Amino acid sequence: MDLNADLGESFGAWTLGDDAAMLRLVTSANVACGFHAGDASTMLSTCRLAAENGVTVGAHVSYRDLAGFGRRAMDVPAAELRDEVLYQLSALSGLARIAGTSVEYVKPHGALYNRIVSDRAQAVAVVEAVAAFDPSLAILGLAGSEVSRAAEDAGLAFVREAFVDRGYLADGTLVPRGRPGAVLAGDDAIAARAVRLATDGVVVADDGTELRVEVDSLCVHGDTPGAVAMAGAVRSALAEAGVQVAAFR
Amino acid sequence: MDLNADLGESFGAWTLGDDAAMLRLVTSANVACGFHAGDASTMLSTCRLAAENGVTVGAHVSYRDLAGFGRRAMDVPAAELRDEVLYQLSALSGLARIAGTSVEYVKPHGALYNRIVSDRAQAVAVVEAVAAFDPSLAILGLAGSEVSRAAEDAGLAFVREAFVDRGYLADGTLVPRGRPGAVLAGDDAIAARAVRLATDGVVVADDGTELRVEVDSLCVHGDTPGAVAMAGAVRSALAEAGVQVAAFR
Amino acid sequence: MDLNADLGESFGAWTLGDDAAMLRLVTSANVACGFHAGDASTMLSTCRLAAENGVTVGAHVSYRDLAGFGRRAMDVPAAELRDEVLYQLSALSGLARIAGTSVEYVKPHGALYNRIVSDRAQAVAVVEAVAAFDPSLAILGLAGSEVSRAAEDAGLAFVREAFVDRGYLADGTLVPRGRPGAVLAGDDAIAARAVRLATDGVVVADDGTELRVEVDSLCVHGDTPGAVAMAGAVRSALAEAGVQVAAFR
Amino acid sequence: MDLNADLGESFGAWTLGDDAAMLRLVTSANVACGFHAGDASTMLSTCRLAAENGVTVGAHVSYRDLAGFGRRAMDVPAAELRDEVLYQLSALSGLARIAGTSVEYVKPHGALYNRIVSDRAQAVAVVEAVAAFDPSLAILGLAGSEVSRAAEDAGLAFVREAFVDRGYLADGTLVPRGRPGAVLAGDDAIAARAVRLATDGVVVADDGTELRVEVDSLCVHGDTPGAVAMAGAVRSALAEAGVQVAAFR
Repeated sequence: MDLNADLGESFGAWTLGDDAAMLRLVTSANVACGFHAGDASTMLSTCRLAAENGVTVGAHVSYRDLAGFGRRAMDVPAAELRDEVLYQLSALSGLARIAGTSVEYVKPHGALYNRIVSDRAQAVAVVEAVAAFDPSLAILGLAGSEVSRAAEDAGLAFVREAFVDRGYLADGTLVPRGRPGAVLAGDDAIAARAVRLATDGVVVADDGTELRVEVDSLCVHGDTPGAVAMAGAVRSALAEAGVQVAAFR
Repeated sequence: MDLNADLGESFGAWTLGDDAAMLRLVTSANVACGFHAGDASTMLSTCRLAAENGVTVGAHVSYRDLAGFGRRAMDVPAAELRDEVLYQLSALSGLARIAGTSVEYVKPHGALYNRIVSDRAQAVAVVEAVAAFDPSLAILGLAGSEVSRAAEDAGLAFVREAFVDRGYLADGTLVPRGRPGAVLAGDDAIAARAVRLATDGVVVADDGTELRVEVDSLCVHGDTPGAVAMAGAVRSALAEAGVQVAAFR
Repeated sequence: MDLNADLGESFGAWTLGDDAAMLRLVTSANVACGFHAGDASTMLSTCRLAAENGVTVGAHVSYRDLAGFGRRAMDVPAAELRDEVLYQLSALSGLARIAGTSVEYVKPHGALYNRIVSDRAQAVAVVEAVAAFDPSLAILGLAGSEVSRAAEDAGLAFVREAFVDRGYLADGTLVPRGRPGAVLAGDDAIAARAVRLATDGVVVADDGTELRVEVDSLCVHGDTPGAVAMAGAVRSALAEAGVQVAAFR
Repeated sequence: MDLNADLGESFGAWTLGDDAAMLRLVTSANVACGFHAGDASTMLSTCRLAAENGVTVGAHVSYRDLAGFGRRAMDVPAAELRDEVLYQLSALSGLARIAGTSVEYVKPHGALYNRIVSDRAQAVAVVEAVAAFDPSLAILGLAGSEVSRAAEDAGLAFVREAFVDRGYLADGTLVPRGRPGAVLAGDDAIAARAVRLATDGVVVADDGTELRVEVDSLCVHGDTPGAVAMAGAVRSALAEAGVQVAAFR
């Protein structure tokens, strides 16, 4: 099982998360590319740290929205979105190479992640950008989404992820941020959730429904207070349960 | 003799210059990378047009200053500047590849161009970025400048340029923008100036001094009204004078 | 009848439209506030020109989206949107005062304009910002929209506008940009359309339907090539038809 | 003696400093205006908190440089700088009014603060903006600087500040950031320094020189870890020494 986290989300004078600690715990790093977070120096140093820790690097591409941290859905025309993904992917790839590693996958961020669960045009735009840049790259996202279908149509590998600290609705989508139950607390409960996901492929929705989830990667958040402790608890619990933690590629 | 121009300087709804026409006249295109101008779609389409016209692509890297169009010198710490150049160079390189071409050189833009004539720390930062990214890339700039020395020290090719439509002071530097004589007018006079530069390596300063200039590339501006007519006049005059116009590489 | 146009939409090195000429033709100027266009100097000089020409100044508030010129709808949370409108309105008001005039109304721009035709939460956010800033300000927008209802509920004056150069669908909404018939051509036809709107309150939709439109202000676009000629044709035709052209306040 | 701190320096998802705690300790709040930090909602909530705590609000105006947090000097032409200061001052003034308070002074931030110690053109530009906006506003800055002279020439009140946690060189300027001794540590030592400044008007430079400093306001930094504890130590020590802490106006 892969463990991924959103990293490199500092910007200029603003620091977010403890990337150095997280990079000792996860196996895949979703690195911000400058559109929702991540200046050039942060991107480069995050790639360097990932390389040192043997962590796979992914491009955490976003709508162009620093003020909103990429959390506000935008009606970006498909061609424009495709080009903006290409720009971000190109920028991170060059910096990753300088850092002695390479971009292996793309994970859309925030509002873009949520939008392409159901918006076919934007999902196809993201997939086209990745396919044009390098068809050997994977896309990391939600199973059963428009972007997973578009990736499949384009012959791209798709890595299905689940969230260990986000609430699920009975229909398999996430409880929207800002709603009660959107973000879970309690390291033990979250670690147990991770183990159940990794061993049984099951997550319990907010109404108690047991959801069957196909999952290749577990997402642990890197920007919350206590993120490192939580990721540590998840990693330990997985080890104790005999789950091998390794990058999906 | 190479003819270069600053292109791809549109941004979003704002259009600047007639890139399609300019790309039929120049041999090297300095393409904006998003920091002073140039959104992702503009960068990609400019690279495509350059490829179709057999025009060499260069990265026109800048301070991060959209509001000032990169024309305001900034005291950016060297490490930060190096990373910002790497980011821009990476972004354009990826897009150029998608467009079927590649970045062959780097030309610093505007205030950065002027600053690294004499600021050694920033000059070295730019050179380090280029050398780290790809030591086979050339840097295009002013002969006799700090950046030319830093490039030489690092073993990078340096392409010396002269400006056909900018006034020179007797010390060989450009008349600062905003001062009388900073930007010249008159296509015939400018074309004659270009021929003299290409054949004799001489340009006449604003006080009448004949300056000897070593020059591998002539810069024609792409963003002024009448830019296309002027570039056409220069190109024709060079042809009539028997100067072969071709990319420096 | 009031004639309004979107002005002050230059940004840094990028110029858009011929504001000086437009300000001799219109009676209300929607001045960009820095979020989709308009830097500080442009805002100030546009206000000065408006004051000199006796043109009423309005705040053309937008989503924060320079790269998309405010034309991409964004899911901005209501509280955030309200504060961003307050910021823009405050900024322009201060500059207008320095220029010897004052902001008299607010016109939401682009995607925000379209969004609050039907999005009640964002419409209320805009209205709350205006009411908090100065309840004597008017809001300029589409008749029958959510924002017109929200303005009425809050006791704000609402100025109903129609577009002389945009196509209408039979349901009274605009033909979306990018679709055929979205933007009309032909100064005479547009001027005739303006006269019919001003005298009969009727506009012909793209399928031939005659739509009854309540209208206090006619919008002429300032950023298209030929905008000045078109606005001049509209103004002349209105004068010939005996329609008095004057700011709505 | 006034105590001022830089506040409202969060931006979007990024939080900086503990403004609520600082606003219980200081008497003047330098509120970021969106150019180096501070989104609209942060500005508004900071003004509200300042009003609740009876803290005077000042506009912390900056170069336009979010990525560099306003810490990189920029060669902004004077007219442009003046207009950018007016924009920021206008924006904060409107939001302060909504929050039930008002802007009483202007403190240039970071690199702009340092630049106008010696750059007359930029100093005059800042002063002209403040004088045009409201000549009853004060400017807060370094005694003996170009900006203090320009303020005096324009008839503006000038508030002289000293820094309790920054090292001084023997010539009275600050030890540049990044150099050893630039930022001091040790709450007791800093509190003692504050008391000496407030009672004797003396600060000890890094070479031991006793500098005589005319000071109306002491600056405590709000963005460092331990800022609240340090400000609390300073406030207590001043009280114990019998120094009355109150806003300069």
